[in-house]
Amino acid sequence: MSDQPIGFFDSGFGGLTVLREVVRLLPSENLIYLGDTAHLPYGNKSPEAILEYSRENAAFLLQFGIKMLIIPCHTACSQALETLQKELPIPVLGVIEPGLKLLKHKQKVAVLGTTRTIESGIYQTEISKRFPKTQVFAQACPLFVPLIEEGYKDHCAAQSIASAYLSPLIGKIDAALLACTHYPLLKPALAAVLGPEVELIEPALRCAADAKEQLQSTGRLNSQSSPGKIRFFASDDPDKFARHAKDFLQNKIEKVEKK
Amino acid sequence: MSDQPIGFFDSGFGGLTVLREVVRLLPSENLIYLGDTAHLPYGNKSPEAILEYSRENAAFLLQFGIKMLIIPCHTACSQALETLQKELPIPVLGVIEPGLKLLKHKQKVAVLGTTRTIESGIYQTEISKRFPKTQVFAQACPLFVPLIEEGYKDHCAAQSIASAYLSPLIGKIDAALLACTHYPLLKPALAAVLGPEVELIEPALRCAADAKEQLQSTGRLNSQSSPGKIRFFASDDPDKFARHAKDFLQNKIEKVEKK
Repeated sequence: MSDQPIGFFDSGFGGLTVLREVVRLLPSENLIYLGDTAHLPYGNKSPEAILEYSRENAAFLLQFGIKMLIIPCHTACSQALETLQKELPIPVLGVIEPGLKLLKHKQKVAVLGTTRTIESGIYQTEISKRFPKTQVFAQACPLFVPLIEEGYKDHCAAQSIASAYLSPLIGKIDAALLACTHYPLLKPALAAVLGPEVELIEPALRCAADAKEQLQSTGRLNSQSSPGKIRFFASDDPDKFARHAKDFLQNKIEKVEKK
Repeated sequence: MSDQPIGFFDSGFGGLTVLREVVRLLPSENLIYLGDTAHLPYGNKSPEAILEYSRENAAFLLQFGIKMLIIPCHTACSQALETLQKELPIPVLGVIEPGLKLLKHKQKVAVLGTTRTIESGIYQTEISKRFPKTQVFAQACPLFVPLIEEGYKDHCAAQSIASAYLSPLIGKIDAALLACTHYPLLKPALAAVLGPEVELIEPALRCAADAKEQLQSTGRLNSQSSPGKIRFFASDDPDKFARHAKDFLQNKIEKVEKK
C-alpha cells in the first residue's frame, strides 16, 4: 500500500505551492495532481458548484488508488473538505487546519482569501473558537488570482490593487494569513503595502508536514529510496497548465495529461 | 412563429451590452439570455472546451423554440460560430461580422480582445481579406474581464493595466475595436490611455441592427405592440448574475433562473 500515490486537486495552479512542499518533505512519494482548469477560478463560483466539482475531482483521483487526498485550495476546502472527509474511504487533508495552527499566539490577524473563502466565514468562526482573544479582519481579494495567473504579479497594478484591498488594514494587524495558495506569489506586493512588521503566513509547509505525520503514524510512508513519480492532469488546456506550472513549482513540468 | 423568442448566450454578463441594444431596437421581441457563469471566463479556456460549452448552451436555448440565436461573445464566436451556423436549424448571429463592418475606411486599427479571441487570429485574417490596406494590431487584454467583473473598472489599477496593454499602440492607431462585449464598460480608462483621437468601436448596436434586418427580411419580427418578455438564466449563482447584470443593462433584473 505504501507506494500508492497521494492525490491533490485544485482549481488550477495555486495548489502546486503545496505540492512543492510535499515533494521536499516526502521525496519518495508518488503524487497525482489534478488542476480543474475547466472550472477555474473557483473563487467566484457558487458553494453548490464547488462541492460538485470537488466530488468529481476526488472520484477521478480515487481511480488511481490514492492513499491520501490533499486539497491545496482554500476555496474548495471551505466548501467541500468536511463533506469529502465523511464520504471518502481515505484520509483527506486540507489547508485550513494548517493555517489555523500557524495563527496561535497572533494577536491581530488579517485573513486574505477569495470571495468564496471569505464569505464562507470558516476562518473567522474557527479563529474565534480557538483563539478567542485574537482580533480577526477578513478581506476578500478577488483580483489577486487573475493578476497572478496572467503574469502581472510584479506589475505596478498588482501593488495598486493590493493597496485597494489592504490599506484599511495598515497599522491594525501583526500577521496576514495567505488563505489562498496563489497568494504566496504576491508576497513582494503584499509586503510593500503592509510593511515589514506584518508577518505573512503561508500554510503550505505546515500542510505538507501534517501529511507526513499522518502517513508516518499509520505506517503508510513509501519506503522506496528513489524519487517518487509525479503525474499532472488538467481538465482543460494541459499545455497552458504546463506553461504556468513552472512559476509555481520553480521547475519545468515534462508532461501534463488531459483529464 | 413571430412570437418565438430570440436566444442569447455568453460566458457571463458581457453579452448583456448586446441584449440591451436589441431591446432598444426590437422592444416587442421575447428574449432568453443564458449566462454560462459555471464556465466563466471563456477567454482563458481551450478552443475545444469553448466549442463544447457553446453547443450545450445552444441546445439549452433551442428547447425554448428560439427563432434566432445571437452569440454576443467574441470568444465563443471565434471558436464556435461557424460550427453552430452549420449545425443549427435557425439563423445564428455573432458579434465578429458586425465588428468587421464597422472597420471599413479605418486605416490603422487595434483589435482588443481576450487571449482566446486574439489567438484565434479571426479578426486579423478577416481584416486582411476585406481591407487589405488596413494595418492591424492585435492585443490580448486578459485582465480586463476580471477587472470589470470585480467592480474595478473605475479604479486607478484599471488604467494602469490598460496602460500596460495599450501603451505600445499609442500614436500608431486611429481606431480600436472593442472585440469583447465587456470592454465598453472600460471606455473611460481606454480613452484616457489611447487619447481622444482614437475612436473606440463597439459592435453591439450594429449586431442588434443586423438581427432586426434579418428578422424583417424573413417576415419573422414579433408583431405584438406590448413589450417583449425577457428571461434570464445562469448556469451558476443566479443571485450574483442578477447583482452584476444591472451594471451592464443599466436596469435592475427581477429574476434570474438557474439553468
